[in-house]
Amino acid sequence: MIENKILLTECSDDKGLVAKITNICYKHQLNITHNSEFVDNGSKRFFMRTELEGIFNDEMLNTELNLALPVGAKYSIITRKTKRIVILVTKEAHCLGDILMKNYYGGLDVEIAAVIGNHDSLRELVERFDIPFHHVSHENLTREQHDQLLAERIDQYQPDLIVLAKYMRVLNPKFVERYPNRVINIHHSFLPAFIGAKPYQQAYERGVKIIGATAHFINNELDQGPIIMQNVINVDHTYDAKAMMRAGRDVEKSVLTRALDLALNDRIFVYENKTVIL
Amino acid sequence: MIENKILLTECSDDKGLVAKITNICYKHQLNITHNSEFVDNGSKRFFMRTELEGIFNDEMLNTELNLALPVGAKYSIITRKTKRIVILVTKEAHCLGDILMKNYYGGLDVEIAAVIGNHDSLRELVERFDIPFHHVSHENLTREQHDQLLAERIDQYQPDLIVLAKYMRVLNPKFVERYPNRVINIHHSFLPAFIGAKPYQQAYERGVKIIGATAHFINNELDQGPIIMQNVINVDHTYDAKAMMRAGRDVEKSVLTRALDLALNDRIFVYENKTVIL
Amino acid sequence: MIENKILLTECSDDKGLVAKITNICYKHQLNITHNSEFVDNGSKRFFMRTELEGIFNDEMLNTELNLALPVGAKYSIITRKTKRIVILVTKEAHCLGDILMKNYYGGLDVEIAAVIGNHDSLRELVERFDIPFHHVSHENLTREQHDQLLAERIDQYQPDLIVLAKYMRVLNPKFVERYPNRVINIHHSFLPAFIGAKPYQQAYERGVKIIGATAHFINNELDQGPIIMQNVINVDHTYDAKAMMRAGRDVEKSVLTRALDLALNDRIFVYENKTVIL
Amino acid sequence: MIENKILLTECSDDKGLVAKITNICYKHQLNITHNSEFVDNGSKRFFMRTELEGIFNDEMLNTELNLALPVGAKYSIITRKTKRIVILVTKEAHCLGDILMKNYYGGLDVEIAAVIGNHDSLRELVERFDIPFHHVSHENLTREQHDQLLAERIDQYQPDLIVLAKYMRVLNPKFVERYPNRVINIHHSFLPAFIGAKPYQQAYERGVKIIGATAHFINNELDQGPIIMQNVINVDHTYDAKAMMRAGRDVEKSVLTRALDLALNDRIFVYENKTVIL
Repeated sequence: MIENKILLTECSDDKGLVAKITNICYKHQLNITHNSEFVDNGSKRFFMRTELEGIFNDEMLNTELNLALPVGAKYSIITRKTKRIVILVTKEAHCLGDILMKNYYGGLDVEIAAVIGNHDSLRELVERFDIPFHHVSHENLTREQHDQLLAERIDQYQPDLIVLAKYMRVLNPKFVERYPNRVINIHHSFLPAFIGAKPYQQAYERGVKIIGATAHFINNELDQGPIIMQNVINVDHTYDAKAMMRAGRDVEKSVLTRALDLALNDRIFVYENKTVIL
Repeated sequence: MIENKILLTECSDDKGLVAKITNICYKHQLNITHNSEFVDNGSKRFFMRTELEGIFNDEMLNTELNLALPVGAKYSIITRKTKRIVILVTKEAHCLGDILMKNYYGGLDVEIAAVIGNHDSLRELVERFDIPFHHVSHENLTREQHDQLLAERIDQYQPDLIVLAKYMRVLNPKFVERYPNRVINIHHSFLPAFIGAKPYQQAYERGVKIIGATAHFINNELDQGPIIMQNVINVDHTYDAKAMMRAGRDVEKSVLTRALDLALNDRIFVYENKTVIL
Repeated sequence: MIENKILLTECSDDKGLVAKITNICYKHQLNITHNSEFVDNGSKRFFMRTELEGIFNDEMLNTELNLALPVGAKYSIITRKTKRIVILVTKEAHCLGDILMKNYYGGLDVEIAAVIGNHDSLRELVERFDIPFHHVSHENLTREQHDQLLAERIDQYQPDLIVLAKYMRVLNPKFVERYPNRVINIHHSFLPAFIGAKPYQQAYERGVKIIGATAHFINNELDQGPIIMQNVINVDHTYDAKAMMRAGRDVEKSVLTRALDLALNDRIFVYENKTVIL
Repeated sequence: MIENKILLTECSDDKGLVAKITNICYKHQLNITHNSEFVDNGSKRFFMRTELEGIFNDEMLNTELNLALPVGAKYSIITRKTKRIVILVTKEAHCLGDILMKNYYGGLDVEIAAVIGNHDSLRELVERFDIPFHHVSHENLTREQHDQLLAERIDQYQPDLIVLAKYMRVLNPKFVERYPNRVINIHHSFLPAFIGAKPYQQAYERGVKIIGATAHFINNELDQGPIIMQNVINVDHTYDAKAMMRAGRDVEKSVLTRALDLALNDRIFVYENKTVIL
């Protein structure tokens, strides 16, 4: 049966890597419909993303790649299919709303398994789209207890990715380690400017002329994870913090859904706390 | 009672206009919370938008403005309130969806009275938001007959503005004249490039490196009305017409809702087929 | 004699300010060719910039404005003329080069009185444009001594503005106080991200997807002065620090010359470490 | 001797092309330092640009590529070196000035062999940089005669590329055919909007909210050649045609120099009147 798969390869750089990998594909009679590679000259690291079409013998492919690639190489053969996500929210609707709407009209190839809120405010919106909403309150719980409850809810759906669509709480290290490079957050500033709380207030006080948003994978340092996408808009002296927040919503939502789209299409490598997007 | 109103003034330029108008406001003890003015040096036309706060005597204000301003001056004192719109659609959901969602979470200060489609496809989405949807099919009707049916439906709601959210049919001159400078359209190109049908196909064939969207009031020449807002995104050789269309959706929806926001806030003057935005 | 002047007014907000000021202009038979005002609702501060044309009696204007405006108001009547600048540089040519070139073809209305470098490297370029270049080396001098030499050179030319076109040294507080809000610097990052040395290296290490530049007036905290203008460009994983630096040059130079253009046209108010640009 | 070369390949798509080409490189012990490929799915056309490092046997490489690639394939092995250009100008200095300045400080890896003007206005600027300027007046000449004189002057320098830096005359078909895909023009609009003369005047009259510039190779239809790069800036009702022209200069010059940079690095393929940039 003709299938479409993606081969992701990451290893230390070496002469002939492209030839070796594409040779194996060619011998398997797999057609390369799209190929991108990148060598980071600083770290001498090789990254390649190969879209393949044909009849796959994954076992034999794996064996041959294993022989051909340098020791320590990471590679995976991924079947293209609609990925499943769980979305975490607090009270703000715009990022969630954009994902719901894009999912509705086919603008994102995604299955939204469930939405979880630490407040109940967005239940009504989510249920309008016939998607399960769970209220997992943080009240009277330690962060660890609350995150544990979240993780249990999340794991029930076995999502490929977790999307923090303006989830306004910090997640504890144990939670972060559970889902390495699988949790995408949107931060409402142009990182690393304005880390932490109230970035629009900080931006207003500093008198910046541009504000932005940053989508990143979370790691264990606040707002320090690998950046996937950023975008900005112009502001001027007529914008107070509230006007910046209002204007920033469109940037936040578009940055988040575009970053999500990259992740849904297996286009993101993470290396040394940075992303390589192929 | 303290009220907030907007004074819009448009007339031929003359010495002392700002002084005359702001004097009248001052005498009425009205506080100017925001004022913008513009003189078009080519046409010697004066435009001013004044946000006022205080206790209004509209009749006396009108009399005094009438005496102070040049013959032929247009001015209006507008009470700030949520405006009512009717949205016309065909089959595409993204622009409609963004207005519905922004209205839902308070991102636009607007009342969506109804949505009218020449197809029935978007009924389900609209009704999820408890907004009336009317299917007014164009089948077996002349353009005039169909537009007449649309106008009857529209007038039933007495909207302040009509929004064409990817309504894919040309409206006849009689319809256009019925709602002068009150019908906002989104065209999926950077006008005046790619007027007419299939602009993304045209853009792809020309090999452009940037695509865009244009929000404009409609007039009686196809895609020739006064432009309110435009925006663009970069594309490259990897985008075929379909990929451009997909990427263009986010620009279309943000340009349309931002143009609508300007109209909802009485910030647009139309003069000589252009807009002055104060 | 008909002259063109600019009236800049800044004071605490009060009812009727626009009326009072424009009335005085009207009584003086001065034509307002352009007017912009802004009220900062947080601080209740009023700013107005009024372009005037007519026959001026500055003394009487001053007296009447003094009577009409609140106590503590700042206002100035500025004759429109080409401003004189002195440029400080180190070794990089791109920002200096753009100012020289724009001055050459009339893209900036400015008189470049002199260029001063703490290295001699750019002498040759400056002298190609028949502009005096002074090498004021910092070697074997304390910062205070060096800045004092700079100030003496600068004062010899009595410039309206001082432009730091990639001048790579910090200036001491005494120097800064000598020229309040008259020294424009270009910082090669999107402030407040990447304050201090080697911002492109910092940006590369953080893995950002956008880099930028910031033009600001200097004050006594490093890279903390009032921001005039910012702009950004997209980068990706293929950019190392050197490639970012190379790509950033065009942004740096355009941000600096545009900020300079605003200052040359008396369009910048500074208040509470921010700029209001009218 | 270790050399750096670029292999450009263009042919009809076929299974295993990447493997075949990279295999040949691998057998020659050439290190691929950067590789990009693109398949146009519409036309089934394959493009690949491969940066190579090693000891080259061009003759054998050519033979092997010839055997491996489909009939009709185009490929070339290009030695990386500074390219030579001739610049054509009329009276405007900003695009020329930016190329001169970038060349001066090393921002472009280029040798400017000469500048040719149909007016003499820019001689003085060019000679400040010790570059030959030739005045080839069009007065009292037919277009063919004038273009013939230009071509003779150009050929004397054997340039790799010809840059029209605001050369304001149309070149005749014979001239165009003499230098296929080697003449880069900057057009001061966002093509295909505002083809032909006075695009800023056209843009002003249409009331657009964004203006732009387009760098393209010239072909035999006015402003219809393959587009290399485009960029835009926002304008509003305060811009008349002259202000647009002034604001547009910075876009024009940066679009032209960036397009030139792509050409200087052999990154542009031309196919079906479009560019593929790898």
